[in-house]
Amino acid sequence: MATIYAVGVGPGDPELLTRKAERILRSADVILAPVSAPTEASVALATIREFLDESRQEVIVHQFPMTSDKARVLPAWQKAAALMAVRAEAGKDVAFVTIGDPLLYSTFIYLLGILREICPNTPIEIVPGISSINASAAQAGIPLVEGDGKMAVIPATAGLDKIAEALARFETVVLLKVKPLYGDILELIRQTGRQQGTLFVERVGSSRQKVLTDFAEITAHAPDYLSLMIIKSSR
Amino acid sequence: MATIYAVGVGPGDPELLTRKAERILRSADVILAPVSAPTEASVALATIREFLDESRQEVIVHQFPMTSDKARVLPAWQKAAALMAVRAEAGKDVAFVTIGDPLLYSTFIYLLGILREICPNTPIEIVPGISSINASAAQAGIPLVEGDGKMAVIPATAGLDKIAEALARFETVVLLKVKPLYGDILELIRQTGRQQGTLFVERVGSSRQKVLTDFAEITAHAPDYLSLMIIKSSR
Repeated sequence: MATIYAVGVGPGDPELLTRKAERILRSADVILAPVSAPTEASVALATIREFLDESRQEVIVHQFPMTSDKARVLPAWQKAAALMAVRAEAGKDVAFVTIGDPLLYSTFIYLLGILREICPNTPIEIVPGISSINASAAQAGIPLVEGDGKMAVIPATAGLDKIAEALARFETVVLLKVKPLYGDILELIRQTGRQQGTLFVERVGSSRQKVLTDFAEITAHAPDYLSLMIIKSSR
Repeated sequence: MATIYAVGVGPGDPELLTRKAERILRSADVILAPVSAPTEASVALATIREFLDESRQEVIVHQFPMTSDKARVLPAWQKAAALMAVRAEAGKDVAFVTIGDPLLYSTFIYLLGILREICPNTPIEIVPGISSINASAAQAGIPLVEGDGKMAVIPATAGLDKIAEALARFETVVLLKVKPLYGDILELIRQTGRQQGTLFVERVGSSRQKVLTDFAEITAHAPDYLSLMIIKSSR
């Protein structure tokens, strides 16, 4: 019986794939990779390209619009799930690839729900991946959290009040998708005196990676949408 | 110039090592693996044994007492740091291996501080690893957090009041080291009505792995010290 795999490929460095991810990607019959715009290259696909053999494997690049408007995204998820289910039913192993980890803020979470409805008897196996959080800390050489410390992980889109609450209560606060609220977040960091404990990382593991620990440099920078911040109460 | 590596080996399954971790462990001159008691086997070492060649590599198993008493642990960290620094100074690449990720609640965080003091010119490279959090979610097929949801990671040793605070504010709460407060945590889950959203995982990735989603089974279980819980506001 064929299996549907969700493979976390890590932050974008092919060496940060797990051995299991590599094995599954080399043997799968079908690879489905997401892109956010028709003109854009798939970061996940670029990360795994060296493991694929397109003479033998079907590689599908599927577009998932970058929007929180579910009405616009749902058809893309449903189509992707159908593409995968049909091939799995035909006995082909299908691997959906995703940057980072498949169960941590990934598009795959929505696909998983749909797949369990439309092909309930097809086994689904999830291969965890290195998240950008762990990769960013490693690149900067800065511990995430230790001992009895508590860590909060918050998409900045959750709102400034949630970020302020977490900064008051958690030794480490990881903020994802910081771009839209960047100025407000920097002001909050100033107000809470966390400038020394702030790390900014953009496009970790890629050739365009940027790791900033100096608050003046962080303030001067214009972040792109693949950036995160790790804010600690002390360093 | 020699390098000191901190290599996260993931939760205990050799297939969940990254390709980079495998490469570094195969080429390092010295491997240092932690154990918590002289009679115990090193989980990290057992995970990577198949990649080592002891005819060529020096393998040191070093004991770090399992206690929060810093006075008892500090000498063990200092000795480990010295063992590593001396070999790196002699031109040998040294790899410290650790279960999970080296910068997320790992003994390596303490070693890192000491190493930066005693051998400030030796490059230290950190290789991120799959944490038990991501591996547990993957094994259970349960998403950690999605969309604008917030996730808190809390060692139960931080205290029951901190756990209650997080349950009131976060869509997902990951509790580590649940053993000492297990009964109290279960009572808190009952009080907040999160029984349906509770996942218990013990020794993920090992042959003794246990994944429980039924709250009655979770209640009946006696956890060991390598167990965690993922508590969601909804499933």
